[in-house]
Amino acid sequence: MLFRDITIIDENFKVRRHCYVGIKGDKIDYISNKMPQEDYGEVYAGRDKVLIPGLVNAHCHVAMTLLRGYAEGLPLDRWLQEKVFPFEAKIQGEHFYYGAMLGIAEMLASGVTSFSEMYFSVDEIARAVEETGIKCNLAVGVTSVGQSASFEQNPMVVHLKEMHQKWNGAQNGRILVDTCLHAEYTTDEHTVREMAALAQEWGSITHIHLSETKKEQEECKTRHGGRSPARYFADCGILNGPTHFAHCVHLEEEDRRLLAEHGASVAHCPASNLKLGSGIADVAALRSSGICVAIGTDGAASNNNLDMLAELRLASLLCKGSTGDPCALPPEEVLYMATRAGALSQGRENCGLIKEGFQADLAVIDLHRPHIQPVFDELNAIVYAARSSDVVLTMCDGRVLYRDGVYLTLGDEGIIAGCARSSGEILEKL
Amino acid sequence: MLFRDITIIDENFKVRRHCYVGIKGDKIDYISNKMPQEDYGEVYAGRDKVLIPGLVNAHCHVAMTLLRGYAEGLPLDRWLQEKVFPFEAKIQGEHFYYGAMLGIAEMLASGVTSFSEMYFSVDEIARAVEETGIKCNLAVGVTSVGQSASFEQNPMVVHLKEMHQKWNGAQNGRILVDTCLHAEYTTDEHTVREMAALAQEWGSITHIHLSETKKEQEECKTRHGGRSPARYFADCGILNGPTHFAHCVHLEEEDRRLLAEHGASVAHCPASNLKLGSGIADVAALRSSGICVAIGTDGAASNNNLDMLAELRLASLLCKGSTGDPCALPPEEVLYMATRAGALSQGRENCGLIKEGFQADLAVIDLHRPHIQPVFDELNAIVYAARSSDVVLTMCDGRVLYRDGVYLTLGDEGIIAGCARSSGEILEKL
Repeated sequence: MLFRDITIIDENFKVRRHCYVGIKGDKIDYISNKMPQEDYGEVYAGRDKVLIPGLVNAHCHVAMTLLRGYAEGLPLDRWLQEKVFPFEAKIQGEHFYYGAMLGIAEMLASGVTSFSEMYFSVDEIARAVEETGIKCNLAVGVTSVGQSASFEQNPMVVHLKEMHQKWNGAQNGRILVDTCLHAEYTTDEHTVREMAALAQEWGSITHIHLSETKKEQEECKTRHGGRSPARYFADCGILNGPTHFAHCVHLEEEDRRLLAEHGASVAHCPASNLKLGSGIADVAALRSSGICVAIGTDGAASNNNLDMLAELRLASLLCKGSTGDPCALPPEEVLYMATRAGALSQGRENCGLIKEGFQADLAVIDLHRPHIQPVFDELNAIVYAARSSDVVLTMCDGRVLYRDGVYLTLGDEGIIAGCARSSGEILEKL
Repeated sequence: MLFRDITIIDENFKVRRHCYVGIKGDKIDYISNKMPQEDYGEVYAGRDKVLIPGLVNAHCHVAMTLLRGYAEGLPLDRWLQEKVFPFEAKIQGEHFYYGAMLGIAEMLASGVTSFSEMYFSVDEIARAVEETGIKCNLAVGVTSVGQSASFEQNPMVVHLKEMHQKWNGAQNGRILVDTCLHAEYTTDEHTVREMAALAQEWGSITHIHLSETKKEQEECKTRHGGRSPARYFADCGILNGPTHFAHCVHLEEEDRRLLAEHGASVAHCPASNLKLGSGIADVAALRSSGICVAIGTDGAASNNNLDMLAELRLASLLCKGSTGDPCALPPEEVLYMATRAGALSQGRENCGLIKEGFQADLAVIDLHRPHIQPVFDELNAIVYAARSSDVVLTMCDGRVLYRDGVYLTLGDEGIIAGCARSSGEILEKL
């Protein structure tokens, strides 16, 4: 495909107008203000449109679309214990598949080309990823509290290893399997240390929920001799390999220093953190300490959608409002977070930029809409005015997966019906 | 029109399924779970859809769509002085009309049936309101600082009086003209006292920007012997009549008590307040003090859209996150704010509820979308998951103004072109 006369957000996150962008195979092959000599196949008319790097949802529980709107108005601990965990205990088989397909449908329609997934059972999720053509870093959210099995015998560790064996690197690297711990408060020290060793062995990124609530931060200190979750994980060896931490709402300065020192990345999930009353992460401090900060939606049960454009707008507004600085987190920086930083947090060096030789993970936003016009600057338009419904094309590894309201790799009606059936079956068993 | 088998948000903001809602003339004539005997004309199939009261945008500068994305990354005072005021000084004639039409197009497509407008020249805005069929409380944002003219000679007061004469009550009450002061820091005491007298004479609501920034709150105290803007306005007689205050980010407890005592309403504008770095209004405190709190988008230059569904979701999330209480501002309350409270803040007793005898100001949201399914509770779905693009019908005074992507009273292509031409002409003169 050749994008003709389109505005792009270039590799420096600057607006560049009237570009020709040629895609060959799964790569971006050509970027110029001149028409290429080479024939790239279909010519896509880019007038009034902007080509951006595909959005990366850096923290998600995609099958939780099954629980969208199911449990509302509870703090995180009660929300998990009283509503989410009992519901999740009844999810089985194809329920996971339909939940994942629904979430992927939503993400593809909103310009997302990759997501970092953490869930307790991911085989059917991987199948959905495989079918739909989206990218995914999969992780099994290992817990050990309340279990007597050894690390090797822990069924979630067994599942993680099976998934790594089966899916890591599948689809030409489109699917990766990461090491993972659900959180400090759901795992024992032995499990944490063993997971650090496994990550070392695999050379994988470890994905963990960190310092999401004040309660988590304080209770960890009580449990672990005054040590914060970040300090405790560092002491257990987790930070010796690459790590990716979701939330980080209640990090302290020393925690940020630790994370920065060890090259950790963070998934900022502002909507979920607000909705569960967890607070507002200090993104300005995270970034100025040198941490790579990406953006995630979290699961649909605490958001309640997987809308990365809404999420990056919220991240930008919230940073301005909470710091009192209207210059904080300007459009180019928040778009970087939602694209390139996300790709880096997934260990995908070759993704997240519109640059020759990079993977063709792209989204097209149509700016010719009443709620976006007039356009003085395309970056402002994308971040502050555009909505997910303005996404008109989503491409992953050079393959068009969504275009003008139509999914090329899935049937949305069957998925909506499958989800309704799944939710019904789960509710019956509760 | 008869809405058949539709879910409604009833007058108590509860979900009521499988309803028949009959519209006769400009009123809601029939609500029941049974098919009516009477013939209401076209039957609208309501399956998978929710009927809500039309959204009320309680604080807007609609023609500022012309400046969408024009000035970014500045605090309120510099944003106004260096960018907005110079641009606005060059807006003239049909520019206002096109700016207003564009904003109205955006609002109609997102379920807004009424808005409270404050701008310095509103005749062309009134013309756009008249043509499109939306409701509007119009106000001229009177300023007097830097002027030597008396109140009677102040060109903005002259304009306000002309507009009141020409438009107040027009279109069967669809257009109302309110008294108005831009703000404490842009008006002198004589003007404030005279406006209070004029409001008394007209029996009108006075619309004012109040305590938007910390700077405004503090500088007012310096200017007026330690009195806050609210106290100062009260002393000038403004609170003796009905009042509507936008922003109220930096109100103190005594200010809230004053406003509540005098039955004032407030337009909460969370996106604009965040974006300009003004802060986060304490909505929980405003509401618990007994103030009627509505929701507004503010102008598109500081938002950057007029998306009331995004705004009410943000209001709900922000209240939870800033108080740490996930039960704060639940869906039924925030939807009340965005509909009924808005109507009351406009002095429209007969609007903002789905109730027999009320004006037929309504919006239909389609829930059969991947990003909303499954639906356990329609209120959660509307507030936390739905987007403006899920609005499929907007009706004002019983007249369908927008349906399935089509505007019935305006041509969006001509408007987008008119706005582009207008912005171009303005920029040329700068």
